[in-house]
Amino acid sequence: MEEKLKRIQNKELGQKVVTAAEAASWIKDGMTLGLSGFTRAGDAKAVPTALVKRAEAGESLKVNVYTGASLGSNIDKLFAEAGIVNKRIPFQAEPSMRKAINAGEHLFVDQHLSHTSEMLRGDAMEAVDYAIIEAISVTENGYIIPSTSVGNSVAFAETADNIIIELNTAQPMELEGMHDIYGPGKQGDRDPIPLKEVDQRIGKVGIQVDTDKIKGIVFTHQPDSASTIVPPDEETQQIANHLLNFFREEIQAGRLTEKLMPLQSGIGSVANAVLHGMLDSEFKDLTVYSEVLQDAVFDLIDAGKVSFASACSITLSEDKMKHVFSNLAEYQSKLVLRPQEISNHPEIIRRLGLIAINTALEFDIYGNVNSTHVGGTKMMNGIGGSGDFARNARLGIFVTKSIAKNGDISSIVPYVSHTDHTEHDVDVIVTEQGYADLRGLAPRERVPQIIENCVHPLYKEALWEYYQEALERGGQTPHVLEKAFSWHANFREHGTMLPAVPQV
Amino acid sequence: MEEKLKRIQNKELGQKVVTAAEAASWIKDGMTLGLSGFTRAGDAKAVPTALVKRAEAGESLKVNVYTGASLGSNIDKLFAEAGIVNKRIPFQAEPSMRKAINAGEHLFVDQHLSHTSEMLRGDAMEAVDYAIIEAISVTENGYIIPSTSVGNSVAFAETADNIIIELNTAQPMELEGMHDIYGPGKQGDRDPIPLKEVDQRIGKVGIQVDTDKIKGIVFTHQPDSASTIVPPDEETQQIANHLLNFFREEIQAGRLTEKLMPLQSGIGSVANAVLHGMLDSEFKDLTVYSEVLQDAVFDLIDAGKVSFASACSITLSEDKMKHVFSNLAEYQSKLVLRPQEISNHPEIIRRLGLIAINTALEFDIYGNVNSTHVGGTKMMNGIGGSGDFARNARLGIFVTKSIAKNGDISSIVPYVSHTDHTEHDVDVIVTEQGYADLRGLAPRERVPQIIENCVHPLYKEALWEYYQEALERGGQTPHVLEKAFSWHANFREHGTMLPAVPQV
Repeated sequence: MEEKLKRIQNKELGQKVVTAAEAASWIKDGMTLGLSGFTRAGDAKAVPTALVKRAEAGESLKVNVYTGASLGSNIDKLFAEAGIVNKRIPFQAEPSMRKAINAGEHLFVDQHLSHTSEMLRGDAMEAVDYAIIEAISVTENGYIIPSTSVGNSVAFAETADNIIIELNTAQPMELEGMHDIYGPGKQGDRDPIPLKEVDQRIGKVGIQVDTDKIKGIVFTHQPDSASTIVPPDEETQQIANHLLNFFREEIQAGRLTEKLMPLQSGIGSVANAVLHGMLDSEFKDLTVYSEVLQDAVFDLIDAGKVSFASACSITLSEDKMKHVFSNLAEYQSKLVLRPQEISNHPEIIRRLGLIAINTALEFDIYGNVNSTHVGGTKMMNGIGGSGDFARNARLGIFVTKSIAKNGDISSIVPYVSHTDHTEHDVDVIVTEQGYADLRGLAPRERVPQIIENCVHPLYKEALWEYYQEALERGGQTPHVLEKAFSWHANFREHGTMLPAVPQV
Repeated sequence: MEEKLKRIQNKELGQKVVTAAEAASWIKDGMTLGLSGFTRAGDAKAVPTALVKRAEAGESLKVNVYTGASLGSNIDKLFAEAGIVNKRIPFQAEPSMRKAINAGEHLFVDQHLSHTSEMLRGDAMEAVDYAIIEAISVTENGYIIPSTSVGNSVAFAETADNIIIELNTAQPMELEGMHDIYGPGKQGDRDPIPLKEVDQRIGKVGIQVDTDKIKGIVFTHQPDSASTIVPPDEETQQIANHLLNFFREEIQAGRLTEKLMPLQSGIGSVANAVLHGMLDSEFKDLTVYSEVLQDAVFDLIDAGKVSFASACSITLSEDKMKHVFSNLAEYQSKLVLRPQEISNHPEIIRRLGLIAINTALEFDIYGNVNSTHVGGTKMMNGIGGSGDFARNARLGIFVTKSIAKNGDISSIVPYVSHTDHTEHDVDVIVTEQGYADLRGLAPRERVPQIIENCVHPLYKEALWEYYQEALERGGQTPHVLEKAFSWHANFREHGTMLPAVPQV
């Protein structure tokens, strides 16, 4: 109990401790919840779970669920299976929820991760009734100190009428001091965000709120879900090697130095593998300005390759979590966690000149990228921060394996089945086959770069054929529109994008 | 001559006056030119024309042509017809050039207008050999004072080895003091851009260059081409009315005040008509933070509706040009011209919370927008600044008439044939039928809003049919991919998107 009380330094707030079930009982049908949590880190765990129990007990209940990004702790799975979600915003990455979304069982709004807080502050979405925020402590003067992510918690706490805090005693107290909480304020009455360096601190150690809005504090003791990242394989290793070679060419051309520029890397195994590939490279004094820090960033810090890393969330595998959390003091001077509206802000991304590396689901011969929709219709996870970064970065890089499903899917198609990033925002594309540098190229110049450097040999000829036919029709961006999606139709009907082999 | 010499206050530079033909003779085959000019305003006129003469005289010559945006003075027409362009960047709006681009006769790179200068500074495109910049004067300490546009002239002058100045004595000297020249500097070594208010000045009165780089000064006397804007018609008037009603609803909901937020309006007749529609409205104390100021902005200033306007170019009809240029002193305290990397900068657009109004070529039932490609393949003009604004604005609004070609084209289609702005960046869509407010809506919620409020009666039923069939397949964004472009195919084959009427 003493350990617990250390976590609430404000005496008045000490009176507000309740059970998760009691806090969950305040949530009414039709309300909107703003939950902490970004890529399985720092998510509110107990109150959402208690809320699901109400539905499981037979109560009819639907709520809107806003978060930073994806949640761990099975929250999205429980929500989806209990059928209590009306609308989910702005990102998810959970199979049951994905299924429910694609079946039209609940609504999902796929947003740029820097936009949600702007829309809330501008009153352009349903307002948050309850912000439910995981924290490691509440200070004497009422600052909420977040845990392993900041996400959208600042905007949720600022705009919500009511706040519930989950004080998670499984999260180390050494996280205190690692956060840098800065809110940009209202549009039209804003100062420039003063951030000029990756390691700069511009805000406060916690989220300042009107303590009257804090309706309850729930104690929990549950570690974050470990990340499900898979180790690098041969193809991701090749992608990493091609990318490192591209960087070497840039250095030779005098466009980069060995320090490169601050690195952003999207969530997922491919992006993690790419950063991992830098471990044995000559690059040094690297910095990271990203939305999420995965295992590879800590490996790079341990190896002395990365001197500082800024993000809005830390998401680690089980082993890495143990290592990092038991040595947190060593990392304190090398890490900062910011709100996602700062980690992903166009102003900062452009100012710092980031190198942004994100994963594509598919791209086309002109360099348009699909990050979200399988076969053009089914949501995978969401665009996440890839648009915030790619549009504004010095280098917008997309990586993917050239084929999937044992070759039955080509990641490079005549026409992307859904567009998340347009030709205007895609600088470099990398597959295990090689890389295509598209900067300053007209559409007709991009085609040979992409087909020759990035496409799997299984599909090269068919893409050239499509393009030759398209060229006969002319235009800035030649296409045979009635065949543009024929590869996707082929996959849907025959289970493969491969052209049919003539039957003898 | 005395009048002319007043325009060169630096004596040393007075020695560098040459003819246009002589200056043009320095340009070699294969070079890259950076020309001043944005939306027919402030374009370099004499040297490009002299260069074309060399080609017409039989010389084999190809150059890359970078500008701010579109040019007037027939420059792009002359370039295209003489066949001297290798690559054109980042925007054009000229029929002959459009034809050459779509025939594949020369290359065109369609860029966000805020990106070109970043790419030049980052050495990510062919460097500029000659910057050719129209100016009204050169000061004693070597500042170049631009004329009616700033465009990319700062980045061109900074990065080019050689500068040619066209001193246009037809441009009024009263333009001096109207420019605010600020360069953001190198990425990674930048300060925040200190601009917090539309009317704030953060830079210098002209472009500071190393005078040794100025290789020649050419005198010209030729007004800008007048804009080709057409007056509001019934449909554009209806679009304006719907938009004003939307603003009224926003005010009622407490999200806007009668001052609205700083307005941006794209180039063209529809956008001009929308601003024009504000003349007789109750809105007041408006400000404009845009890339180009067209006639309507000056009407609004004259009517006391707009208190201040910031842009990177002034483009007027012939009559309006006469009026404005003979009363320039009156406008001086109400106008500022900035580089396009500032007028279109995500940092500023987001900070100020703009209302951005741009024209769509077509959009689809989920709110994706095509701004550039007719039938998915043929370039119209380019994306221009619409992406800079729509992505970062407080309100990203797109306007268009619901039909074209007497009803044979529906501007709203099942699937846009080219994507410039994704669902993530489009807040409100307005046609003469009404408006659809898409903020915070999931794809399946957007469809009825768009079909019922924006689509022409001729096409409503067919769009509902497509959507119903798509729904049977499910997904976050239901589509029948093999029919997604069937409307475009129908138009290509039969000259209409209208469903075939059964023959009796």
